[in-house]
Amino acid sequence: MLETSPFIQKLQMRHELVNRRLCIGLDPDIALLPEGFEKNIEGVYQFLDRLIQVTEDLALCYKPNLAFFEAFGLDGFLVLDRICKLIPSDVPIILDAKRGDIGNTSAKQAKFLFDYFPVDATTLHPYMGYDSLTPFFDYKDKFHFVLGLTSNPGSQDLERQLMADGRYLYERVLGQIQEHKNEYGNVGAVVGATHDDFAHIRAEFPDLDLLVPGVGAQGGSYHDVLNASGASDGEIIINVGRAVMYAAETREDMESVIRETITEYYT
Amino acid sequence: MLETSPFIQKLQMRHELVNRRLCIGLDPDIALLPEGFEKNIEGVYQFLDRLIQVTEDLALCYKPNLAFFEAFGLDGFLVLDRICKLIPSDVPIILDAKRGDIGNTSAKQAKFLFDYFPVDATTLHPYMGYDSLTPFFDYKDKFHFVLGLTSNPGSQDLERQLMADGRYLYERVLGQIQEHKNEYGNVGAVVGATHDDFAHIRAEFPDLDLLVPGVGAQGGSYHDVLNASGASDGEIIINVGRAVMYAAETREDMESVIRETITEYYT
Repeated sequence: MLETSPFIQKLQMRHELVNRRLCIGLDPDIALLPEGFEKNIEGVYQFLDRLIQVTEDLALCYKPNLAFFEAFGLDGFLVLDRICKLIPSDVPIILDAKRGDIGNTSAKQAKFLFDYFPVDATTLHPYMGYDSLTPFFDYKDKFHFVLGLTSNPGSQDLERQLMADGRYLYERVLGQIQEHKNEYGNVGAVVGATHDDFAHIRAEFPDLDLLVPGVGAQGGSYHDVLNASGASDGEIIINVGRAVMYAAETREDMESVIRETITEYYT
Repeated sequence: MLETSPFIQKLQMRHELVNRRLCIGLDPDIALLPEGFEKNIEGVYQFLDRLIQVTEDLALCYKPNLAFFEAFGLDGFLVLDRICKLIPSDVPIILDAKRGDIGNTSAKQAKFLFDYFPVDATTLHPYMGYDSLTPFFDYKDKFHFVLGLTSNPGSQDLERQLMADGRYLYERVLGQIQEHKNEYGNVGAVVGATHDDFAHIRAEFPDLDLLVPGVGAQGGSYHDVLNASGASDGEIIINVGRAVMYAAETREDMESVIRETITEYYT
């Protein structure tokens, strides 16, 4: 029996405090900043600082989306680092990066994510198979969510295609993720909330720790996901991005509007 | 009929000059630097500068591997940018990044790659489907190689699994890539050289422009790939990384040893 991974331990302690499955996605976009913030990278920093201030006692964890930071160039990486350091150390951080390559390249990708940013977990592409993932899993104190069934329409193109054994591709992938979990202990899956058969998937893989995107702007329901997950052993982390981040139209309204949004819709 | 993409035009003009299919992979690793270079990021820059000097009249194109630069942190991105600017403007640059995410995130990933680095092409993960790729394809002047069948052992885990229709997953993906090419014109595929049935794959998809990794240190043969590709319409780009980059043991030997390696083995 493998020990529970440090990330899952941290998550469980945090859940006891906040009693909520909400992961707040950090996808900063200048065009969507509330009134009262400058429309530049410093405005982005000020906005995220404020967002964390008004949510840090409510969120189960945070998920910064690396692409939304790197789109600002090198300044974006610096802001990401500053933001991660604003988040209290008992709150898990999932750096959403969607990496994966041949082994020696994956090792470099992992070094970048984990040596330069104070984060607890990341996200990975399964397409290239086992040896593209293990350099990440070897970061044993970190946790790794592998894409299983994503929340976007394109999940039909490959993920939901039938294999020769009668299963969908994503079911094969989730089965492999379960094997990785059994071997390494620090592996979970991404399964989107936008699928009607979410409860069936959860029931088929009750032991997997799931990161669930697609709630809010993409149309999935926080409570439907929660209800579908009731009896499972695996942890569940429900990410909401735009619907929380940009709930308020002005800087002044952020505290009241965002806290109300969370307590009303994501509790 | 779509116009030939700017990348393919540049590649074809370049091929007329060098008459060689060799793409030189740029995967800088301090532990592998020849004697005569400092074991730090400036040494990496000096090494790559020298490598480009001694190969720029021989290479069809270059493929910097983003992960090997980002592993140095922000300094790595700056060196990548400087290196790209050392490469003559008539030599195509493929920035190997293995990206792909839901649409609005893919748009940010593409912005980072193409707005900050003077490169002509990138590489993408197909797992999340069509709408995860089109934000890249919309960069119409750039070219996009989607992973089909990769060169690593893990290609057995998903890519070579049979689908319900009797084809392998990678064949389905290559078929989709052909559709993307028909629609956008600026899409090609990654197919590794390490597969015994490479010639069969090339024959099944003769129209696809292929980026072929796996030659050299990974065991694939440059001439086997060339021979297998004779009658195809699609371009072929054969990447060799370590076997060229690190052919010389000292700085002084780089010119003679690397040029001999290329003319003897990769011509």
